[in-house]
Formats: sequence, structure tokens, C-alpha cells
Amino acid sequence: MRYAYLGPAGTFTEEALRQVASPDEAVYLPQTDVGSAIAAVRAGEADRAVVAIESTAEGGVTATLDSLATGSPLMLLREVLVPVQFTLVGLPGTRTADVRRVAAHPHAWVQCRRWLAAHLPGAVHVPATSNTAPAALLAEAAADPAAVRSSTFDAALVPPAAVGTYGLVPLAERVADNPSALTRFVVVGPPGPVPPPTGADKTTLVVHLPDNEAGALLAMLEQFAVRGVNLSRIESRPIGDALGRYSFSIDAEGHVTDERMGEVLMGLHRRCPYVRFLGSYPRADAVAPLVQVGTADADFVEARAWLDRLRGGHPA
Amino acid sequence: MRYAYLGPAGTFTEEALRQVASPDEAVYLPQTDVGSAIAAVRAGEADRAVVAIESTAEGGVTATLDSLATGSPLMLLREVLVPVQFTLVGLPGTRTADVRRVAAHPHAWVQCRRWLAAHLPGAVHVPATSNTAPAALLAEAAADPAAVRSSTFDAALVPPAAVGTYGLVPLAERVADNPSALTRFVVVGPPGPVPPPTGADKTTLVVHLPDNEAGALLAMLEQFAVRGVNLSRIESRPIGDALGRYSFSIDAEGHVTDERMGEVLMGLHRRCPYVRFLGSYPRADAVAPLVQVGTADADFVEARAWLDRLRGGHPA
Amino acid sequence: MRYAYLGPAGTFTEEALRQVASPDEAVYLPQTDVGSAIAAVRAGEADRAVVAIESTAEGGVTATLDSLATGSPLMLLREVLVPVQFTLVGLPGTRTADVRRVAAHPHAWVQCRRWLAAHLPGAVHVPATSNTAPAALLAEAAADPAAVRSSTFDAALVPPAAVGTYGLVPLAERVADNPSALTRFVVVGPPGPVPPPTGADKTTLVVHLPDNEAGALLAMLEQFAVRGVNLSRIESRPIGDALGRYSFSIDAEGHVTDERMGEVLMGLHRRCPYVRFLGSYPRADAVAPLVQVGTADADFVEARAWLDRLRGGHPA
Amino acid sequence: MRYAYLGPAGTFTEEALRQVASPDEAVYLPQTDVGSAIAAVRAGEADRAVVAIESTAEGGVTATLDSLATGSPLMLLREVLVPVQFTLVGLPGTRTADVRRVAAHPHAWVQCRRWLAAHLPGAVHVPATSNTAPAALLAEAAADPAAVRSSTFDAALVPPAAVGTYGLVPLAERVADNPSALTRFVVVGPPGPVPPPTGADKTTLVVHLPDNEAGALLAMLEQFAVRGVNLSRIESRPIGDALGRYSFSIDAEGHVTDERMGEVLMGLHRRCPYVRFLGSYPRADAVAPLVQVGTADADFVEARAWLDRLRGGHPA
Repeated sequence: MRYAYLGPAGTFTEEALRQVASPDEAVYLPQTDVGSAIAAVRAGEADRAVVAIESTAEGGVTATLDSLATGSPLMLLREVLVPVQFTLVGLPGTRTADVRRVAAHPHAWVQCRRWLAAHLPGAVHVPATSNTAPAALLAEAAADPAAVRSSTFDAALVPPAAVGTYGLVPLAERVADNPSALTRFVVVGPPGPVPPPTGADKTTLVVHLPDNEAGALLAMLEQFAVRGVNLSRIESRPIGDALGRYSFSIDAEGHVTDERMGEVLMGLHRRCPYVRFLGSYPRADAVAPLVQVGTADADFVEARAWLDRLRGGHPA
Repeated sequence: MRYAYLGPAGTFTEEALRQVASPDEAVYLPQTDVGSAIAAVRAGEADRAVVAIESTAEGGVTATLDSLATGSPLMLLREVLVPVQFTLVGLPGTRTADVRRVAAHPHAWVQCRRWLAAHLPGAVHVPATSNTAPAALLAEAAADPAAVRSSTFDAALVPPAAVGTYGLVPLAERVADNPSALTRFVVVGPPGPVPPPTGADKTTLVVHLPDNEAGALLAMLEQFAVRGVNLSRIESRPIGDALGRYSFSIDAEGHVTDERMGEVLMGLHRRCPYVRFLGSYPRADAVAPLVQVGTADADFVEARAWLDRLRGGHPA
Repeated sequence: MRYAYLGPAGTFTEEALRQVASPDEAVYLPQTDVGSAIAAVRAGEADRAVVAIESTAEGGVTATLDSLATGSPLMLLREVLVPVQFTLVGLPGTRTADVRRVAAHPHAWVQCRRWLAAHLPGAVHVPATSNTAPAALLAEAAADPAAVRSSTFDAALVPPAAVGTYGLVPLAERVADNPSALTRFVVVGPPGPVPPPTGADKTTLVVHLPDNEAGALLAMLEQFAVRGVNLSRIESRPIGDALGRYSFSIDAEGHVTDERMGEVLMGLHRRCPYVRFLGSYPRADAVAPLVQVGTADADFVEARAWLDRLRGGHPA
Repeated sequence: MRYAYLGPAGTFTEEALRQVASPDEAVYLPQTDVGSAIAAVRAGEADRAVVAIESTAEGGVTATLDSLATGSPLMLLREVLVPVQFTLVGLPGTRTADVRRVAAHPHAWVQCRRWLAAHLPGAVHVPATSNTAPAALLAEAAADPAAVRSSTFDAALVPPAAVGTYGLVPLAERVADNPSALTRFVVVGPPGPVPPPTGADKTTLVVHLPDNEAGALLAMLEQFAVRGVNLSRIESRPIGDALGRYSFSIDAEGHVTDERMGEVLMGLHRRCPYVRFLGSYPRADAVAPLVQVGTADADFVEARAWLDRLRGGHPA
């Protein structure tokens, strides 16, 4: 199996990928960004992509949500949770007190904001394209004094895994503001068999509303509520053609083969201008949903038999 | 065909029955009350009952609704509308100004209240078991002076049709307060084939709520709203075991074979402790319902095919 | 105080009235029907009316609901619960086995239906204008053999209190089908000070919907739900001008001086074509409502102060 | 007046600021990021900040929403719309065909994705901290051949206004994928008088839900719907303490002094764990909201007077 992911070595995404398939049994195809990882699957250059979809700090990952929402169909097959921590690493000889310019991916910067304000109050953000790009530059600098001089930063925020990978010097560890921060990754593949239900599954959807009124959002949520399907995530994304036009990215509790979920999906499909099914897959936390009275599969089957009796003129 | 109905000759119910089957082609089985007419069908003594179910003046007819809601299953096969008017008829020789005691079925009395207050302000109500019972007594009195003397009333409110049937003398015609008053009658039969959909049908249900909170009524109504099914009548009836426990009698627009109605029925069946289907039949006014976007049968069929593709791993 | 009520002596209504004011301290003004009792208050001939408004067997009492819903404003001041039982009484010398014709108010007949079917299967219903009218006739018959012969019935269903009042002979006691049946009575007066809140109150309303769609009923119920006000009774009554046009009679849990109830009332008044407030009064069962989070009076007062700060430019 | 904004000269934000106050009558205080601009107001170093809050391409601007949602209270005073276009500018002597590395703020990169894929298929993204940072470097390079050699990019996406400001050479104009793209900016100040209502206003809020169920979102939306207040934007942002816990950023149509908006705000304040009012201000498009029946200020005033009459015992 070939896995495209946000590389290079040492990223959080690699950490997620290692939970899915070890480097011994799979081909790792590092990419420069999330869009490229997903495109590699669409192009058939990779069998799967592993991409971040949601984090406690930032919410939905825009690039992932947008890449999945349009273009040729893809399917989410699995989710993986990775704790988010950062280590501050420096150029050789740098002391924390001397740090002036910190390279960091914008998401990393945001997640360490309070620590930075407290410990490096005057430090300036040097944006990086990934969490590990500055790690590679630091590793290069460790070997080449010229690289030190031309470096546009003197320290960087990197994932803990990158410290060993690149042989870096930690200045401070666990500097993220939220010690329980997590990022959720998904394994993306081409359309194909849906992973079988486990009893603790999630279904991911993209839904556009029939119009941009509050009432339309209410009506969409009622499609779920009336069949007893709960949501674990709902996020709006602009459709992009005008201010105020939104697409909703949704994680619903349950599996596409659940009767109640099937009826919700059909209801959305009938009433909304656009619904994309992105897959049903096991929840990483294995928490089964609370099934409301009358919404188990057996209840649907029994109700169908009852309706058939009514239609056949044999009530009760 | 044998038809049980609230007799005797001259009642509004007979007028409704004449719209269904002429006396030449059917056996008319007059009954003393609505409950008996319905019981005759359950007992197999009649093939059909014709009973009033709703009037502009009184709303739902309690005895009919209650008889249909419990006991062995029955089916509504057709509805018929009859204009409600009353004629004041008197004992021989009676002048309107002399009328002191007016025999009338309680519903008739209620529907002529304003006319009575204006024209017979001191008149007392002598309750009758039916609209035609006093007509028969008046006919008897016309032939027998002794009957005049022992009569407990000197005038009566009767249906226009009863005037000719019994050879009575009208004192005043069209005395009902509401000139556009109607009564809706239904033809009731044993369980059997549902009348085929005409595109302008009504479905009648009895539904108990899972608990007696306002929220439960809201949730029940949302089962209809979310599938775009409108209601033309909803009435509460006490379940009878405690104050505040109600059963709902409902007319919904559409036919049990409509996909959207089927899904509503299954939803109610799954979530409510008791749902009784009383039939789908053509609307007397032949008004087709407004079908909301995405709720036509074709939309359901297409959504089912789409869901099947999703479940089979072939989205879009 | 002068009390108009459905008389004569021995009625359930009298039993309710005795809970309100003893005959020693009040003037009892028996009336022939509920409408007359209410009219007596409107005319200033009585200070109060005591009328049945709801029963476990029949639900809302139509005549009461309709008399209160239109005409000059009145106010409900108190509610009283009376257990509903019936005693079968006969003409002198009558044995239960010989009973052929049973006088009974239609509501009494309905409430003893199963007992009658089991014990007097062939008995015919002779409708009475009240529960006690036949008791008076039986008392007369006990004294006068001629009255026995001309009687149109040979037994009657009467309230237990009437047996002693009229010196009657019980044939069978406690013949009502539902041993826990109750009737709820209300004390009606002219507009004036609302009874102070007790913490366990009820508010009675009449509401017409802006149109006859299911959505309009949903929207009306949401006015209550969104402010956390629960309903203990909701009944539809035809407005009377066309089939399918309904007025709703509602008992809501709480008092007009509750902040949440005030906001509900104003919301209904703003959105519905007609809202009539019929009063707030203590619940007979003294059960306090469950107050949802954020809906106590203090929450409203605090929220108002917060809003005032926002409007004044002093958020938080 | 001192205005903090995302500088330097030539940014879209400067273009927005020019709509608010000309450089002649105000002090422009350019900042390196949105957070700093907002912090300058909190610190008293600026009187106002002008910051992007929403764009057609990206939806809500995370940094702005998050900075406003927590920390000491601030107030939105005005909104300004700026069309979003980009010009591709190059180092002296660069031809479009030779461009390999393009400096661009990540949002700019995203908004020109299709154009870049079509015209510069192999180009690599060099992230910039702002839309104008690369413009300044290009201006420097134009004057200094050494700067050309050390440049990490050979072209940049910049706002049209930056071309003249920095004396740059356009390679291609209007390269944004969406010709009608807009960014919405807001003017932020310290708490103080709310701008008076104009009849076409917007109110911006941050709301946390009482729990993370779909039902809670439904209930929150019903607070708006039941008072007839429409939403023009609703976006979820993670609260940050756990996956699946969201805060909602909302623009509602209307002004805090509108009666209906006041009641919505109080309802949210009572039922939700956290509500922050961020201000009411005129809509840039001056479109007045559709006022539903019964929701104008006069309706609230009249309903309050009616309620006061009810409470005083003077119904109708």
C-alpha cells in the first residue's frame, strides 16, 4: 500500500500514519501539502492519503475539508488521533533568552501563543510551510556555519518526533498551551467498499443548504433530530461564490448502513441542493452512540413490516 | 351492500348515505346512534357504516372518533360533505310566537343558538336523541290529538330533508346561524384493500404521545413537517385514564402509498406508544396537496437508489 | 357572594361548589345549563359561576370552552377536582333485571357504557338535560303512582350526592367504568385582580393560529418550548366558519406574572391573530412545574440587566 | 484617531481603512498581524483596529474571530467590504514563464489556485506573513542586485493597490479565481456607545452551547427563529479544550436596540453558558431585513402594554 501524507519525516501526520501502517509494510510518500496528498490518491499515485481533518485548537482543517468537498469522490476509511505537543529547538549555541525569530507553521504558532507570550514576549513569527521544514533547516545549520548566518530564524517549534529524526537540541519541551490538545487524522482512499459497521462509527458529510436562511439550517438539523441521529461535529465553510453562502461539513454518529442514518441521508439528498457522502468508519474512541427509543435497526424493520400490512389492507 | 347509519329517514346521515348509494341499490339499516352503526360493521351485520366525523360547528364528533380509535380495526373508505341547515317545524296550529319548548338534538340546538336567542328568546331546550326523533313525534301528533296534548315540546329543529319525509309544517327555514356550515361524513368498512390513490387523498390516524409534555407534541408534529406532509385536522381526545393524557386524531394530506406518508407513518410507529391507521381515501373537495420540493414519490425512489450506491461504495 | 352553577341540588357541580363556598356563607343560584351559569356572571346576576371544564372521560367541556372563548371577557379564578361516580337508581319496585330505559345525561351514559353493556345489555338511553333531572322525576314518582306510569324511563344514572338529596333507592353503586375518573371545575368571575401566584399555578388561554397549516401549530408550540413553559392541556375547537379552521384551548404551567409566561403571552399576542387570556390560578393538585435552566424570574431579571448594559455600551 | 491595521501600505486592510478614514485625518498604525492590531486597541495604543473578519474564499478569519471571542471586551463599530483581486508581480527582468517560486500569503495562494495551476503549473508556494511583505522585498530588489540574488522567490501575489505603492512590475492582473470575491472588514473599538440603528444593521455574537448535542444547536437557532431574527453568518470554532466542543460565531440581522434582537439576546444569555455581544453596526450593503409579522418594535411595545393589562386584571 502506498500512503501519501504531509511529510517529511517527523510530522504529526507521519505519527498518524505510523498508527495505520508501519514503514516496513507500506510505502510512505511524503507530500508538501494536504492538497497534494489528496490529489495523489485521485491521480492513482497513492492508494491512501493520511491527512489532518480537525484539531482541538483550530477546528476543521480547511485545506482538507475543501479538497474532500469538491473534485472526484473519495472515501474516508478510518480516523486516528494524535496528541499535539511542540518542542522549541534552536540553532547550535542558542539560549532561550536570546531567541528573537521563531519559525513555526501558523497552526503551531497559534497553539503555543500563551507560552510564547510568557517566555519569549518579543519573539517574531517566521511562518513555515510545515512543522518540520524548520527542523530540516536547523539540521542543515548544525552542519554548516554559513547556513547559520543566512538563517531567517534562530529557533523553531517542531513536533517531538522531529527532535530525534533531525538530531536537534531541545530548548524547551511541551510548550503547547493545551496539554490535552489532539489532532484527528483520516485515512482517505478512492471510492470502494465501506468499512463494515462496528457499532461505534462516524459518518462524514458535506451538505449545502437550499437557501441561506437560518430556517434552512434548522430544517437540515431536524432531518437528523427527527431520526435520532446525533452530530459530533458541524462546521460551516463558505461556498465561495458570495458572502453568506455556506457549505456544512458534518460528522454524524453512526454508519451509513444504519437504518436511521440511511433515512437521514435520503432526507438530506431529497431536500438539499448538494449532499456528498464522505464515508462511514470506526470512531477512534470506540464510543457507541446512545440509540434513542424507536431508532434501532430492528425498529425500522418492524415499522416497515407494519406499513406493508397497512398498505395491504391488514392493519394491526 | 348493507349500510348502517344514524336513522331514521330524514337525517343528515341519510342524506350523506344517498350520496354514496341510492336506496334502490343498497340496503339501508337505520341505527339509533353512531356507536351502533359502527358496531354493526364490526359484528358483520352491515358491510358499511356512514357516520358523521366532523362538523364546522362542533369539530370532531366524539362518539365517532372514540368508536374508531379503539376496538377491532376498521377502515375509512370515503368521505362525503353535507351542508347543515335546519327547519323549525311545529305541532299543528302552532305559531312561531307561541313556541315555548323546542325539541332538538344538542348539536342542532348549538348550531341555531343565535337564531333562537333572537326569535324565540324564552324557549327551552328539550333534548332529542337525533335530529329526526321529534319529526316522527310531530308526524304522529298531526294524526292524533292525544299525542299533541302529551307532547313535551311544541316545535322542533329538523333537517330540511325530514320536512317532506314526515309531512311537516315549516315555521321557519334555514335557521342555522352559519349559512356555510357543513358536516363531514365517512364511510366505514372492515379492514381490506385501501382505496387507490387519486392524487387528492386524506389519511386518518390516531396517535398517542410517548409522554404528556408539550415537547412530545412538537416532536410528533415534526415527524410530519420534516417529510413535508401537511395536516388538515388535528384534535385531542382524552385517553380517559387521567386528566391531561391525550390521544390525537389526525387527518393528514396524502395517501398511505405515498412514499412521504409511509415514512411519516413508520416514524410515528417507531416513536409513539400507539398509532392506529384508519385509512386513506379521496378528499371530497378533490384538492391536491402542495407537494414540497424533494417529497414526491420519484424523489424518494431516486434517494433510495442513491443511498444504495453509497452503501455499495459507489458514491455520486 | 352569589354563585351560578349547573343545578339543581345533587349535581357534581354542586359538589364542586361546596368545595368553594358552603351554602351558609354563599347564595347558590342553580342554572339549567353551563351557558346560563356563565351568562349570569356576564349579566351581573351572579358574582361567580362554577362550571365543569374538563373530564377524564370527555376531555374539554365544549359548552364551557366555547362560552369562555368568545363574548365579553371573564376570568378563571380557581380550579376544583371532583371524583366522578354514578349510582343507578330506579322507580319504586324496579329490579335491575327489569330495567329497559335508562335516563342519563349523555356524558353519564358514555362514562358507564361498559357497565351498562355488561349488566343492562338491552337498555335504551333516554337523554336527560342534567345528571339530576331524572332524580327529581324519580322522587316525584315515588310519591305519585300516576307519575310512575307516565315516566319515559324506569331507572337513571345519578351522582352519588343526588341519592340522599332526593331520597332515592340505589340499584347499583359505583357503576362508572373508570374508578379514577375526575371532573375539573373552574370558578369564573368578571375581569379583576388575578389570584396571586402560589408557585403551582395554571394559565388558561384561547389561541387562534395565523393559518391552518401544520407549521403554524408547530410555530405556536415553539413559543412555549423556547421559553421552557410546559402545557398540561391543549385541545382544538373548530372556529366554526369552515372545516379545518381551529382554535386551541390551552392550559400552560405557570402564572401570568412569571417572566417566562409573560414572554410567551407576548409572543403569542404578536404572532397569532387572536389570543384570549382566561386567567392564572392555583393548580388543584399543587404540583409545582419543573423550571428549566435559565427560565426562573431571576434569570429574566438578570438577562434584562445584562441587555441594558450591552445597549449602554458596557458589555460583560 | 489612531487606527491599528494589518500593514504595511498596500494591503487590502489599508484599502479598507481608507474607506473609514483618510490618512490626512487619522494616524495609521500598521501592525504585523491581526492579533497585534486588536491588542493595540486593548492596550490603548490605538483607538480603533481595522481587521478582516470574513472572506468569500475562506469564510471567517480565524485569528480575528478568536481574538474577539476572548480577552477583554471589544466592540465592532462598522463593516467595510473590499473586492479581492491579486496582481502577479515579478523581480526585475522576470517573465511569467520563468516563475518558479511565488511568494504569497496563504489566503492569497488559495484564492488564485486555479489560475496558478493553469498558468504556473510547477510553481512552489513561498508563504508570506502578509500580502504586501513580498512587495516590499521586490521593491528592495529592484534597487539592489544583491537582494535579487538572495531572494527566496521570483514572483509574488499582491493586492492591486500594492503595485503602485511599491512601484512594481505587473506580470499578470486580476489573477484571483473568483472575480466577485470580497473581504469583509470590521472596525473594532473599546466598549462604548453602540452605533445608532439605521434600519439595516448587523449584530455579531459569540455563543457557546449548553452541551455538544445536535439538539443544543437546534435549540439555540430556535431562540432566533421564534422571534423572527434571521442569521447572515454562522460559523463554528472549536472551544479548544476537547474535540467536538464548539463555539459559534454569528451575525444576526438587526440591531441590539431592536426589541426582537433584545429578546433573542436575553434568551441566549439565559440558556447558553456563554454569550458575548460584539456589537451592532450598519450593514455595508444597506439591505434592510425582512421584518416578519408581529416582530416590529411597535408590536413588542403593544404586546407589553397588553400583558400589563392582563396582569392588572383588565383583559382585552
